[in-house]
Amino acid sequence: MASAPPTKRQKSSKDVPYELLYWPGIPGRGEHIRLALEEGGATYTDTAVIQGGINSVLAQIDPKSLGDEHNPPTCAPPILKHGDLVINQTPNILLYLGPKLSLVPSIEEDEDGIYHVNQLALTALDGLSNEPHDCHHPIASGLYYEDQKVEAKRKSEDYTKNRLPKFLGFFERVLKGEASKGGEWLYGGRLTYADLVLWQCVDGLKWMFPNAMAKLEKSGEYDGIWAHYERVKGRERIKAYLGSERRQKYGMGIYRHYPELDEEA
Amino acid sequence: MASAPPTKRQKSSKDVPYELLYWPGIPGRGEHIRLALEEGGATYTDTAVIQGGINSVLAQIDPKSLGDEHNPPTCAPPILKHGDLVINQTPNILLYLGPKLSLVPSIEEDEDGIYHVNQLALTALDGLSNEPHDCHHPIASGLYYEDQKVEAKRKSEDYTKNRLPKFLGFFERVLKGEASKGGEWLYGGRLTYADLVLWQCVDGLKWMFPNAMAKLEKSGEYDGIWAHYERVKGRERIKAYLGSERRQKYGMGIYRHYPELDEEA
Repeated sequence: MASAPPTKRQKSSKDVPYELLYWPGIPGRGEHIRLALEEGGATYTDTAVIQGGINSVLAQIDPKSLGDEHNPPTCAPPILKHGDLVINQTPNILLYLGPKLSLVPSIEEDEDGIYHVNQLALTALDGLSNEPHDCHHPIASGLYYEDQKVEAKRKSEDYTKNRLPKFLGFFERVLKGEASKGGEWLYGGRLTYADLVLWQCVDGLKWMFPNAMAKLEKSGEYDGIWAHYERVKGRERIKAYLGSERRQKYGMGIYRHYPELDEEA
Repeated sequence: MASAPPTKRQKSSKDVPYELLYWPGIPGRGEHIRLALEEGGATYTDTAVIQGGINSVLAQIDPKSLGDEHNPPTCAPPILKHGDLVINQTPNILLYLGPKLSLVPSIEEDEDGIYHVNQLALTALDGLSNEPHDCHHPIASGLYYEDQKVEAKRKSEDYTKNRLPKFLGFFERVLKGEASKGGEWLYGGRLTYADLVLWQCVDGLKWMFPNAMAKLEKSGEYDGIWAHYERVKGRERIKAYLGSERRQKYGMGIYRHYPELDEEA
């Protein structure tokens, strides 16, 4: 895309910092975008740490908004503004940032690599982010947890017993496969944004289901995943970010720690 | 991508038909891929209509598979093979096919158009395909519907009352917004694969929740959606496809018609 011809939208409108619009107070789905921006060394603003930033989020998802001349309305955050471009949907924002922040193989190196990275990110988000969210909200995202506790317990039991091992096992195989080129990273022998997505998911799950995750760790069946987790965490920029005030604590977001939903110790 | 330089993978390996790998017997998530291939006039094979085709699907998602030198393993169908490329995840396959089948604006016309199309497809799949699936399987995809009927009824009530109107209202606004360039199609004044995704979702929902959808139609609040539905259905190639034997009937897939989950007539 770097070599794309001039277009109707001025290139110069992109020589500006990225703007992340996300709810303050929780890492949430916005965290996948933050990790990409941090690892990519990007200059960005974040409504989560701007006084009154929540108003920008609310304006953008106003149920009367029709978007503008260039951009359709956006349904939910995270939202990325870059110049006059406004996009949302976590995997879509990552897809946009990937080539710009060198978090995917270049087209010259690997013409279709971005589709593999995108599919791995989508799979992690499906099984290790959306499903954990539904564990505490299986009936309705608009109801309180307390109004669906019984169903949440049933869903969480199935999740930790069947779904979580299935998805961890899948990514263990991705690391073991030849296309990982060595087993350190998910694809192509180098860090991509799919690695950052998997890391954030595993980190959230360790917080949400500490007992279930500890048992899976003890099983020895997913050793590639835990090594990968430490490898991402040890990246210079990621380490600096995680130690900074920009990294928010888990709370009432995607990953929630309700001890009654976890397995027995 | 058409002007990408030569890569390590031979271009000539792509001068072959697309191969869709999906479960036989239901439209399912594979239908989004079929509609794109049909509207794009592509030559393709489909395991759903090949004797023993299911074995290709099972081999590809074998829980011991490590993928191959080029391709990571795939977690679930739909899967697309194109030459030696193997990818999965519905929105990812559509992203790959979009430029090849002229189902997205070209980079020359609209540098970032593909991100808008991708975000609209992802939003439709989230709210109008994944959530309806969870209406009949809110607790565990591995359990029978009969084992989660009470929870399914509760979730479906919330879905038809709150979530379905929210997402239809969102797409109504997308059509009304300036970026649709006229309100006939979701983005940029021309059909993209996001229109096909929305169409398939609305079609499935009409079958799954006929009463709830009829009420929403009578409300007059979503007239753009119904006109869009007829517009897609009337496309020459789509019309021919829907009248052919290649279009499978709904059954025990994403969209299921359990009258007890629908609203009263």
